[in-house]
Amino acid sequence: MKKILKAGQHVVGMDIGGTKMMAAVFDSDFNIVGVCKKKSKTKSRERSEDRIVKIIETAIEAAGSPKISGIGVGSPGPLDPDTGVIIDTPNLGWKNFPLAEMLRKRFGVPVVVDNDVNVGTYGEWCFGEISGCRHVVGIFPGTGIRGAVLIDKHLIRGSREVAGEIGHMTVEVGGPFCGCGKRGCLEAVASRIAISKEIAALAIREDAPFILEKCGTDLATIRSGVIAEAVAKGEKKVEDVVRRAAYYIGIAAGNLINILSPEVVVVGGGLVTAMPDLFMKEIRRGVADHAMPFLRKNVRILPATLGDNATVMGAAHMIATRIKSAPLKRKARAR
Amino acid sequence: MKKILKAGQHVVGMDIGGTKMMAAVFDSDFNIVGVCKKKSKTKSRERSEDRIVKIIETAIEAAGSPKISGIGVGSPGPLDPDTGVIIDTPNLGWKNFPLAEMLRKRFGVPVVVDNDVNVGTYGEWCFGEISGCRHVVGIFPGTGIRGAVLIDKHLIRGSREVAGEIGHMTVEVGGPFCGCGKRGCLEAVASRIAISKEIAALAIREDAPFILEKCGTDLATIRSGVIAEAVAKGEKKVEDVVRRAAYYIGIAAGNLINILSPEVVVVGGGLVTAMPDLFMKEIRRGVADHAMPFLRKNVRILPATLGDNATVMGAAHMIATRIKSAPLKRKARAR
Repeated sequence: MKKILKAGQHVVGMDIGGTKMMAAVFDSDFNIVGVCKKKSKTKSRERSEDRIVKIIETAIEAAGSPKISGIGVGSPGPLDPDTGVIIDTPNLGWKNFPLAEMLRKRFGVPVVVDNDVNVGTYGEWCFGEISGCRHVVGIFPGTGIRGAVLIDKHLIRGSREVAGEIGHMTVEVGGPFCGCGKRGCLEAVASRIAISKEIAALAIREDAPFILEKCGTDLATIRSGVIAEAVAKGEKKVEDVVRRAAYYIGIAAGNLINILSPEVVVVGGGLVTAMPDLFMKEIRRGVADHAMPFLRKNVRILPATLGDNATVMGAAHMIATRIKSAPLKRKARAR
Repeated sequence: MKKILKAGQHVVGMDIGGTKMMAAVFDSDFNIVGVCKKKSKTKSRERSEDRIVKIIETAIEAAGSPKISGIGVGSPGPLDPDTGVIIDTPNLGWKNFPLAEMLRKRFGVPVVVDNDVNVGTYGEWCFGEISGCRHVVGIFPGTGIRGAVLIDKHLIRGSREVAGEIGHMTVEVGGPFCGCGKRGCLEAVASRIAISKEIAALAIREDAPFILEKCGTDLATIRSGVIAEAVAKGEKKVEDVVRRAAYYIGIAAGNLINILSPEVVVVGGGLVTAMPDLFMKEIRRGVADHAMPFLRKNVRILPATLGDNATVMGAAHMIATRIKSAPLKRKARAR
């Protein structure tokens, strides 16, 4: 990898999730030299400000308190990557939260904030198996489904700075209700919540005894890990639900291959981590059935390889690149 | 518009269609100064070579035989824009046809060849109402449906040089059979052939008396013009078929807005030209129902404005830009 940071320089990569937060300090070779991970917990903005700052401080201490040259953050959106303002994050209770400005004031360094899936895909692209590809589609099915698109090695943002809402591609016209208010979105058919919903219905009909015993019929408790366990225990109808969801992600991936002709589609997130073989097999089947033969030829459909570290690594690389490209214009550009 | 050609320079724009071909000569201000239009007719490669050359020669004569500096061509694909080889065009009976090389030899000037919908969208972007937009999606429903995507003012081509197969986005899983071998593609639901197929079925059931009288039940005769006529005459069920097709194009446009966040979606082709109000209204309704509210805000959904001239104008501008950017590397770059 080309050297971006000067010897001795350090940057922080931060991953803000709806359920957990993680900060990591990187040396100039992008080795992690200090880390701090905590539950997100609080829903008040003031307390989450303090919590974020504390997590970063703890990671810096764990790294032996080096001088920090910048902070990169991946956060749920929608957000404005130009200003680093989080527009709306229901899970964290943030509205128009100037995250970049807050961190810049607290730490006195340049800060870059981008959407978590953009940052995660970028991390995979910088450090993972897809490193160096020109055209990449990233799909991250979790509680919701978001995606990211790299064209000619650049993340696309579109006119509203928020391109990549792959989860809201309509895959079933008039289909199930989606959190966005529409119907039949990929997210309404294939997200963890969509899967849990079907599995809870199986449980209440006593068609998924393992789930019923472990989780009852509460959607909130039917998470990726327990779903994977049920599949491993031979709960056939649970497996069918997972297969169908993954197949639909394959349909969406096929659509994206037809439209964008990427070299690689990378799929990450909790569901894929919990059931990589089953999930990737069905995604590939969905692609095979729905991408044009001459377009899908040689396209690799890969699971993400960096796991939980993708976002902190992508965020660190983003701020490092920013510092390098505009050392004299820090304040203007790296807001 | 910024001056690209030198005063006195002329270029040719050529539109090769499955049913008609057109060449136009442009002066340095991109005024058309000579034109020739003919049916495509022949299916043999040798005869179509001669026909294309003849059409260009006739257009140059009509312009008063100026010296030509280059030729731009929009052709059905798939094709390789780097080499100007047409890979396969069933309608014209071409397979691995080195179109650019042939024209370069015959006329001794640089030639650029690109996909007709790329060139048409590019023409609209250079000269039409969407001129100057950063992020554009073009959709051209006709016999088939193809699209084009401009991101940051550049046509995207993807890893296989053939991105933009918007017509093969799956909009109805397991839906009607498509020419590509898949099922439920937008093209299988909303192209002119998909519409004609439904209308022929109406006719055979005597639910479309005007169509039955004018065309019988032959798909080949049920073309955009006569469909528009039937709608104007109050053939309600024909109108419903058209509405549904246009609505599905709106669904696809909504998906593209969610993924790419363009400023504008431009829709061209024979169906839109024949029924602009009906078609655009239903497309906009499909977008409203399927694009995310914060992404569709301020996105303009517009009919193409250059009609038949979009491709020749786009092709002329493409070759002009190519000549200007690489005057010393003509042979290497403008193959």
